[in-house]
Amino acid sequence: MSITRELCAAIERTKFDDFPADAIAEAKLCLLDWLGVTLGGANEPLTRILIEVTDSLGGKKQASIIGHARKSSMLNAALINGSASHALDFDDVHFQMMGHPTVPVMPAVLALAETRKSTGKDMFTAFILGFEAECRIGSSVLPFHYQQGWHATSTIGRFGAAAACAKLLGLDTERMNYSIGIAGTQAAGLKQVFGTMSKPFHAGKAAADGLLSALLAEKGFTCSEDILAGEAGFCKVLSPDCNPEMITQDFGKSYAVTNVIFKRHASCFETHPTIDAALELRTKVLPEEVKEVIVEAVPIALEIAGKPEPRTGLEGKFSLAYCAALALVDGQTGEERFTNENVLSDRMVSMRQKVKVNANEDFGLTQATVVVRTNDGREFKACADTLEAGSDKERRKADLIRKFRSFADRLLPPGRTDSIIEFVESAEKQKNVAKLLALCRP
Amino acid sequence: MSITRELCAAIERTKFDDFPADAIAEAKLCLLDWLGVTLGGANEPLTRILIEVTDSLGGKKQASIIGHARKSSMLNAALINGSASHALDFDDVHFQMMGHPTVPVMPAVLALAETRKSTGKDMFTAFILGFEAECRIGSSVLPFHYQQGWHATSTIGRFGAAAACAKLLGLDTERMNYSIGIAGTQAAGLKQVFGTMSKPFHAGKAAADGLLSALLAEKGFTCSEDILAGEAGFCKVLSPDCNPEMITQDFGKSYAVTNVIFKRHASCFETHPTIDAALELRTKVLPEEVKEVIVEAVPIALEIAGKPEPRTGLEGKFSLAYCAALALVDGQTGEERFTNENVLSDRMVSMRQKVKVNANEDFGLTQATVVVRTNDGREFKACADTLEAGSDKERRKADLIRKFRSFADRLLPPGRTDSIIEFVESAEKQKNVAKLLALCRP
Repeated sequence: MSITRELCAAIERTKFDDFPADAIAEAKLCLLDWLGVTLGGANEPLTRILIEVTDSLGGKKQASIIGHARKSSMLNAALINGSASHALDFDDVHFQMMGHPTVPVMPAVLALAETRKSTGKDMFTAFILGFEAECRIGSSVLPFHYQQGWHATSTIGRFGAAAACAKLLGLDTERMNYSIGIAGTQAAGLKQVFGTMSKPFHAGKAAADGLLSALLAEKGFTCSEDILAGEAGFCKVLSPDCNPEMITQDFGKSYAVTNVIFKRHASCFETHPTIDAALELRTKVLPEEVKEVIVEAVPIALEIAGKPEPRTGLEGKFSLAYCAALALVDGQTGEERFTNENVLSDRMVSMRQKVKVNANEDFGLTQATVVVRTNDGREFKACADTLEAGSDKERRKADLIRKFRSFADRLLPPGRTDSIIEFVESAEKQKNVAKLLALCRP
Repeated sequence: MSITRELCAAIERTKFDDFPADAIAEAKLCLLDWLGVTLGGANEPLTRILIEVTDSLGGKKQASIIGHARKSSMLNAALINGSASHALDFDDVHFQMMGHPTVPVMPAVLALAETRKSTGKDMFTAFILGFEAECRIGSSVLPFHYQQGWHATSTIGRFGAAAACAKLLGLDTERMNYSIGIAGTQAAGLKQVFGTMSKPFHAGKAAADGLLSALLAEKGFTCSEDILAGEAGFCKVLSPDCNPEMITQDFGKSYAVTNVIFKRHASCFETHPTIDAALELRTKVLPEEVKEVIVEAVPIALEIAGKPEPRTGLEGKFSLAYCAALALVDGQTGEERFTNENVLSDRMVSMRQKVKVNANEDFGLTQATVVVRTNDGREFKACADTLEAGSDKERRKADLIRKFRSFADRLLPPGRTDSIIEFVESAEKQKNVAKLLALCRP
C-alpha cells in the first residue's frame, strides 16, 4: 500500500470517539481563536479585495463570510475567510509544520460544514484529522522544505484542507487518496511574497484548493495513488531531503492538535520569547529609568524578525527591537499596538533605539533573554520560554478568550460574543454547525 | 529594475502593431486548434465532473463553456475549458516550455475577453504576450525544472495566463508585476499525476489561477516585486539550475508563438516521428506482408512513450509500438483510433507484437527511423523528422483545419464550422470576441 493510501486509510477509519479529551479541548480553542482572528482580519484591505473580486464572479449563497452579513459559494468563503484569518499573522502555530495549522483547514471545513449542515462532532473529526495530516506531512519534509523557500502553511496546508474535507464528505480511502492527490498537485506558496497581501492569501488559497480537491474527488475525479511518496510526488520534488515514512508512523497514538501554540502577542512568533521576558522586567523597572536593553535570541529569530528600524506596523511585528520596546513601554501586545503611528511614535523609537539584539546559538526556538540596565547602574535580567509561558492551561484559556473578545466585541452585537463562546464549548453536541456561522454575522 | 518588473514593462509597452505577420497568423492557428481540441474534450468524463462541481458552487453567467449550451463565471469557464482542451493531449506543443503553451493561456484570455467584450486585436495581443512570457520563463528553468518532476504546462502556464489577462485588463507595470507574482506563488503541478484526470486539470487550473491573479492585481492586491528571480522566488525554488536573465533578453526580437508545433496525431508528441516514418512505409508494404518492425527513437521517447503492451486508449497514446502498428495498419491517427477497443483488437495486437523499439542517442527529439522487414525478405526504411513534416505551411494549415472539423462537425450544427473558421481568419478585425464563443455553442 502506498504511503498516501496508508494515510488515507488511517484517516478514514478514525472516529470522533477515538480522540482523547485533550485533543477535542484543543480543537475547540483552535476554533475559538480562529473565529477571533478572522473577525479581526475581516475588514483588512486584502479581505475587501477578495470579497470584491469573488463578488464579481458570483457564486451560490452557501457559506458565510465571517464578520460580514453575506454569503458566497463555499469555495469563495474558504478563500476569503482563510485569507482574513491570516491577515494579522495572529493565528495559531505548530512546530511540526513550521507554520500555521488552523488557517488553511478551518475555513475549508467550516464552509463545507455550513453548506452540508454537518454536526459539530463531524466538523471536529474532520478538523483534527486534517490538522493531523498536515503536521505529519510537515514532519516528513521539514525543515528542508521551508528552508528551500516554501511557505509550509500554503503548500502543506492544502493537504490539511483536502484531508479534512474528504473526511467530512465521508469519502472512502480511494477517493480520499484522489483528494489528497489533487491537493498535492496544486501545492504552492513561496516565501518570496512575505510582507505582502499574498502571504495571507496563501492560507485562503490553500483552504479553497483543498476543498475543491475533495469536491472533485467526491465525484470520482482521478489522481495519482501516491502523491506524497511517489517518484515525482510532493516529498521528492518539493523537498528532496525528506522522510515520507514518518507520515504514517504511529498514527493515532497522539494527536498533533494537542501541541498547538496560540499567539498571545500580535507579532511574529519568533518575537514572543523576547516579549515574554521583557514583560516580566516591566514590573521591575520604569521606561524612563532604562539606559540599555540587551536581547538574546536564537539566530533564526534575528533572521526572521530582525528588522532594526521598522517603519510600519507590519514591520514592527518582525522587529525584536520594537517588540522588546513595546513590552517595556506599553506592556500591551495586541493588534492595536502594531500601527504605523505607534511604531513611529517618539516614545517607542527612543526606547527601541536603546535595544541591542544578539544571537545566541545555544537557545531553543522558544527561548530568549532580556537584560535591562538602568541609568543608575542597576541591572535586571529575565529568561523566557514561550512554551512554558503557555503551559498554564487555565491562564492560557483565559488569555485566549480575552483575545477573542477583543476582536469579536468590536464587530458583533452585544451578547453575541458570549453565545459564540458557549456554542464552541459545547460544539461536539451541536446538531448543525451553520448556527455558529450565523452567530458570526454582524 | 527586477527581472519580473522588466518583463512586465516589456509586456506593457508591446502593442498589436509590433507583431510580425507570422506571429498573428500562428496565433490564429493556435486559436482554431485550441477550439477544436476543446470541443473534442468537451464531453470527456473529467470535463463533466468539473461542470458538475462548479455548477454546484455557482457563478455568474459570464463566459461560455465550450461545446455546451451553458455559461458560468469566467473563472469556472477557464478551469473547465482549460481542462477540456488538454483532455485528449492533442493540443499544441512548444519546446521552449517543454509543454503545452496554449491550453493554460487561451481559456483564460477567452473567458476574460468574452466577459469584458474585448476586441479580437486585444485578445490576440494578450494571447501572444502571455505565450511569450511562459516560453521565456520556460527557457530560463528548463530542462531542469521538468526533470525535477514539475509539469511545466501547469507551473509555468500560470505565468502565461496571468500575463495575458493582465495585458487584456490593461494593467500598468506595477499591477502586472503583482499579477505575475500572485500567479507565481500558486505555481504547482507534479508529473506524478500523469495518466490521470489531474493532468488535464493542470491546464485548466493554471488558466483559472492565472486569471484570478490578474483580477486580484487589478484591484491592487499586492505581491512580491520579483517573484521570478527573487531569493525565494520561482526560479530559485522550483529550479535551482536556472538562468533568470534569459527571461527578458531581446524581448520583441522574435515571438515564441512562431515556433508552436501542432499535433497531427492524437498520441504523445514523442511518438510523432515514429508515426510519420511508419505512415511513409504504409504506402510501400501491406500489413499482412510485415514480418518485423524496428523503431529507433531518441531515449527520452522510450522513457515517456515506451509502454510495450498498452491496455487502454490512453496507454496506446504513450506506446511507440502501438503507434507504429496503428500507422502501418490503419494509417489513421486521430482521436478515434485511440480507443480501448482498437488498442486491444486482434489486428492491432498482432502487428504491435512485431514491433521492436530501440533507443538511439544520436537522434534529436523530433527524429525517428522505422524499418519494416517482410515475410518474403524485403526491407523498407523510412526516417522522419516531425519538424520537417510540419514545415510545409500550406499542408500544415490544411491538416489543422481538417483536425478542427473532425471535432467541431460532431458537436455543432451544420455550417457552424465554416463560420468559426471564417471568424478566426479575420479575428483581428472583430469588434467583440464574445461572438466567437457564441458560435461554439451547440
